Order: sequence, then C-alpha cells, then structure tokens
Amino acid sequence: MDHSRPTPELLIDLDRVAAEYHALVAGLPGMTVHYAMKCNPHPEILAELHGLGCRFEIASAAELDLLTGVGVDPAETLFSNPVKPLAHIEHAHASGLWRFAFDSEEELDKLAAAAPGAAVYVRLAAHQIRSGVPSEGKFGVDPAAATALLLAARDRGLRPFGVAFHVGSQMLLPQAWRAPLRAVGQVMEKLAAEQVLLDMVDVGGGFPARYGRAVPPLSEYAAAIETGLAALPYPVPVVIEPGRAVVAAAGTLRATVIGTAVRHGRRWVHLDVGAFNGLMECLETGNELRFPVTDSRRAATRERCHLTGPTCDSQDTIMFDVELSAGLRAGDEVYIGSAGSYTSVYASSFNGFDPPHVRCTRDPGRFR
Amino acid sequence: MDHSRPTPELLIDLDRVAAEYHALVAGLPGMTVHYAMKCNPHPEILAELHGLGCRFEIASAAELDLLTGVGVDPAETLFSNPVKPLAHIEHAHASGLWRFAFDSEEELDKLAAAAPGAAVYVRLAAHQIRSGVPSEGKFGVDPAAATALLLAARDRGLRPFGVAFHVGSQMLLPQAWRAPLRAVGQVMEKLAAEQVLLDMVDVGGGFPARYGRAVPPLSEYAAAIETGLAALPYPVPVVIEPGRAVVAAAGTLRATVIGTAVRHGRRWVHLDVGAFNGLMECLETGNELRFPVTDSRRAATRERCHLTGPTCDSQDTIMFDVELSAGLRAGDEVYIGSAGSYTSVYASSFNGFDPPHVRCTRDPGRFR
Repeated sequence: MDHSRPTPELLIDLDRVAAEYHALVAGLPGMTVHYAMKCNPHPEILAELHGLGCRFEIASAAELDLLTGVGVDPAETLFSNPVKPLAHIEHAHASGLWRFAFDSEEELDKLAAAAPGAAVYVRLAAHQIRSGVPSEGKFGVDPAAATALLLAARDRGLRPFGVAFHVGSQMLLPQAWRAPLRAVGQVMEKLAAEQVLLDMVDVGGGFPARYGRAVPPLSEYAAAIETGLAALPYPVPVVIEPGRAVVAAAGTLRATVIGTAVRHGRRWVHLDVGAFNGLMECLETGNELRFPVTDSRRAATRERCHLTGPTCDSQDTIMFDVELSAGLRAGDEVYIGSAGSYTSVYASSFNGFDPPHVRCTRDPGRFR
Repeated sequence: MDHSRPTPELLIDLDRVAAEYHALVAGLPGMTVHYAMKCNPHPEILAELHGLGCRFEIASAAELDLLTGVGVDPAETLFSNPVKPLAHIEHAHASGLWRFAFDSEEELDKLAAAAPGAAVYVRLAAHQIRSGVPSEGKFGVDPAAATALLLAARDRGLRPFGVAFHVGSQMLLPQAWRAPLRAVGQVMEKLAAEQVLLDMVDVGGGFPARYGRAVPPLSEYAAAIETGLAALPYPVPVVIEPGRAVVAAAGTLRATVIGTAVRHGRRWVHLDVGAFNGLMECLETGNELRFPVTDSRRAATRERCHLTGPTCDSQDTIMFDVELSAGLRAGDEVYIGSAGSYTSVYASSFNGFDPPHVRCTRDPGRFR
C-alpha cells in the first residue's frame, strides 16, 4: 500500500473488475451483460469493461457522454431509466441509442416525439422481496398495465421491444427473480395474442457483492433465473444489468484516522472519509452494510469500535462495532474493502471534506 | 419567477436571511450568534451575515477559507467540530482562530501540539430527546468526563474555556435544552472547586425552520434556555449556533417536471432534482421532512402525488402524498419552499444529474 498519496483514496483493481465480469459471463451463460455504470463510472473502469466486450446501461445523457468518451457505441447501450428528461432522449436518439425503458403513457409521448421509431421496454414492478438496499416501488407497473403500455407504444409508431424489472440492489435471495419472471411470462402471452413478440427480457441487477457476510453462489441465481426463463411462452434474448457485482469487490477505500475518542465506554475512530463524502450507502441502509476493514497497525490485540466520518454531522457514521487494531491513533490508516460501488458517486463535499480520489491500478501489491 | 434560467436552481432571498438573523438576535437576547455555515456556505450568504455582525462556526479548514474569503476574522470564529484533522488545527491556529471544541484526550494532544495555548470547550452529550433529524450519540461525554477533560486541558497548557452541546437539528421541543444545561451547571460547579471558571456556554443549534407544520415560537426556546442559564452557578457568556433557522426559509428550490407516471393507482411526479442531487435530508429523515410545495400550473383542482427525483435509484424520492395541481406534465415547474439549508451541500452528481445552481437575490418577485 502506497502511503505517500493523500487520503481518502479509492483504489480500483482493474484485474479484479475483469475477473468479476468474467465470472458473471461464465456463471450466467447466454445472458448479455450491460454494466450499470451509475455505481462507478470511472473512465478506466468503463474502458476496461468495454475492452472485454461488456455493454452498458445508462440513466442520463451525461452517462452516455462518458461512454462515448471511451469509445462505446450508443447503439449497443440501453437507456434503462424509465423517466427521462426530454432533452436526454433527444441527445441519446441523435447519438444512435435506440432502446429505451419506460413505464408510463407520458414517457411514450416523449419517446414518440424525441426518438421516433425507437424500441421500448416496459418496466414491471418487482414483487416486494426484501433486498439489502430496499426499493420503495418508485418504478414499474403490473402485467396488465405493462401489456397495455407496450400496445400503446405500437400505436405511437414505437417498437414494443421488451420487458425489464429490478429485484432490488444486493439481493441475497436468488428466488426473488422467480415471481417477476412469471409476470414477464404473463405479459408475453397477452402480447402474443395481439401478434406482438418481444426481443428482450431485462432481468436487471441486484446480484450481490460480498461484504462482511457470505452471499449465495452465482449458480443459485443462474438456476432461479433459468427456471423462470424456461417457463416463458417462447425463447427470448436475456439481458442483465449488474453494477455492484462487477466493481464493489475491486475497490479498497484508503482512509486516514483523524482522531479517536472514548464516549460512554466505547471507542470511536474518526476517519477522513464518512457517509457524506463517500459512504452514503451506510446512511441509506441504516449502517447495515458491513464492509470488511483492516488497518495499518495490524495489532494482534483487537478492539471493538465505532467507525465514523470527519464531519460534525452525527449521521456521518460508517459502521458500529467494528473490530480493528487496539490503540489506533491519528495518522494510522484504515482500509475499507468491497468499496468499489456507490462510494465515489453519491459523495458530496459537505463540511469541506472532499470525496475520495479514484485511482485505478493493476498492481495487486497496492491492495495488501 | 424567472423561467428562462435552467433548473434545478436554488434561489436564496438574502433579505429573508437577514430577517431570520435579526429575529434570532431579538428573540434570544444576550446570546452571540455563530452561524453554522455547513448548512449553506454560499459566499453571498456568508457576506450578508458578516455584514450584519453575525459570527460563524466551522467544521473544517476549507470552511475557514470560505469565511476569510469574505473578510471574516478567524479570531471571531469557533471551530466546533470536536474531532479535527491535525492539519486543520494547524491551519486555523496559524490564521488566528483560537477557540476549539473537543471531547477526547487525543484531541487535546493534537490541540496542545498544533495550537499551543488555545482555548478549548468540551462537547457534552445531549440527552436523547427526539429531534426532527436525530443524532446517534457520535459526539459528547458526560459531565464527569467533561470536567476531567477540561482539567486535562489545563495540564497541557490549554485554556479551559467552555462547554458546548447540541440538542439535535430541527428540535421541536424547547425543553430539550433544560437537561443539557443542568449538566453544564454540574461541570461548572466541579470546575469552580478547582479554581477554573468558564467563559462560554455554547448551547448549539437545533432551532427549527418552518416546513410543512407549525413550530413553537422562538420565545419558548428563549424561556427554556434562560431558565436553564439562570440556574448556572455563575453568569457566563452564551453562544448559539443556528444554521437551518437562519437560511432554510430563505431558500426556494425551482425544479422542472421531467415526467409523470401512474403506478398502482398513484401519480408520481418526477423532477430534475431529488434526494441525491439536493434533497438528501429526505432520505436521512425517512421522507418525513415536509417541504411546502407549489407549482407553475396553479390549478384549482388538486391531486395527491408522490414527488421523486430524476435518477433511476428507487430511494431518490422527495416526499410521498403531496398535493399539487392536477394534470402536471413534463415541462411544468415545481417550487419547493424552506429549501435553503442542506440542499446545496449534501448534493452529488449521481447518475449524471448535477446539484442545483445557487443564486442569491433581493428581488422578492422572483419568489412568487
């Protein structure tokens, strides 16, 4: 680990990104991977994945511009945000992107106006199974509404292209894909009766990264999804949109201890990174994401402590009850593992503490 | 309202900032106001308050630099973050700032090394009374530990200067100040027995802004605090650190509807601003902050809808069950009131959607 560089620093192991991508391709055969770049859009990560043949899904025009900046063809990219600013649709359409998610009549009107003839895929509501980072039902409709919307798309000169759903990020239950795939089958059947055949089922993301605890093997996800696909009325190309599963494990957040304190009998370790400048998911999940942590002191004697951020905001805490070297002091370093996703993108400079600098490398020694 | 400028835009009415500041000065007589600049550090707001005689509290060296940039004297500024990077202490000390918060032995070591002779004030844990934006006990110690820490400060050549506490942001119970002030009295009594007299009691922030519901009048806060102060063993200068109460009401967030959708019978209105690029407090508070909202359509017929942000993240929602004009469509504008605090500072560019541009004005017509 190179201690000469300023912290906080997010180190990304590009070899690990490649390995995780290959594992998904091998473990979910026949499914086309579109990386959900929102979770880490660093250009070197995008270029690495593009070089391996990975495709992408975007949520905004700015994300599309990042992709074209590293040579990605918009025609191979999915615009999976179901509600888009009109100007973003226009920009994407002009760039050659031709497949757009939607889940409302008004979005169809916008798409018909700004991307005439585009292929559209409807977002189905996933059943409310608890995921690690829960959804609130913002997107998606039921099968009857989805069917009606795809027929309405055809009436507007758009191409009814597919169905998409998202089971929720960091989904630890492989069977979560089963019910949404049954709903997909209902839509396909109803549409077939109207002479509409679909060309894409997008089973979304949600494939977990390993944080503190073990996660089910990818084979269980493959089995659940393949069982669901086998029950569809006809074969259809399948797309997955992993994000966290591709980059989380490749990231190590290197932070410096800025101070420690004992309060009410518990040691608090304050780092130069916290919820507001990098680890917002800790706040989102009620501090339930358990990142693996180590430190530069490597003491045999361990101590349980609360790990918190540099701001004066009481909500800026990373994890409660973490085991670290006893006697950690200001100037020591702490390494937060599995930190490659959602750590550079949610970050603000609240209180004057800037987000981590992102550095991609292939030197595994830097991560020891 | 000027519709020609791009959205999202955070409009700050500087006259309202001044009025809120004057109301606090008048309503809490004898207490010195140090604005908690973290909640909105826009230079024009800082300059306005500085011109009115307001002082400031900071949490980092970067915040201090913003203040000196508008002519504030560091010697009149409080460094109220109890745990600070060593380099920030050195920078503040070199700039002439001389009063520092702390709540641990290790912070005293850092202060003695980097700011020899500085005045220090200890952070007391406030009793856990529920505030609108709850605290998690990150900072503060009990009266016995606080007393010992101030004596330890004296032993290190530092000046035992005061006691601080924070009842929690958006505190709707004026009596929340009573118990911490009793604890302050205990510390003062114990220290007096050691010939140490304090020069500052910092009763913190927490004074509420008005969002959707009425808040207790400032007179009730003044009465509760004055009752507590009257019971202290000897008179002592008092400091308050309001943030939200100074700037929240002065801010209007102007947003554009990018699309609407009906899902499961409920209308969703998607704006170009959401939790991730400006309204993070919605996420922090479980969508319980009820900002007053109006819209450009001003229809007599009203419709209940869910107000959400532009990203594809399901957690990006602002408020559930808001009443707006029926028939809102893409291109309409929505105005979110009481949005002056914590809306430009927590914001990220997640998914490629940038935070609001901040614009300060004195033209009240722009806010109608």
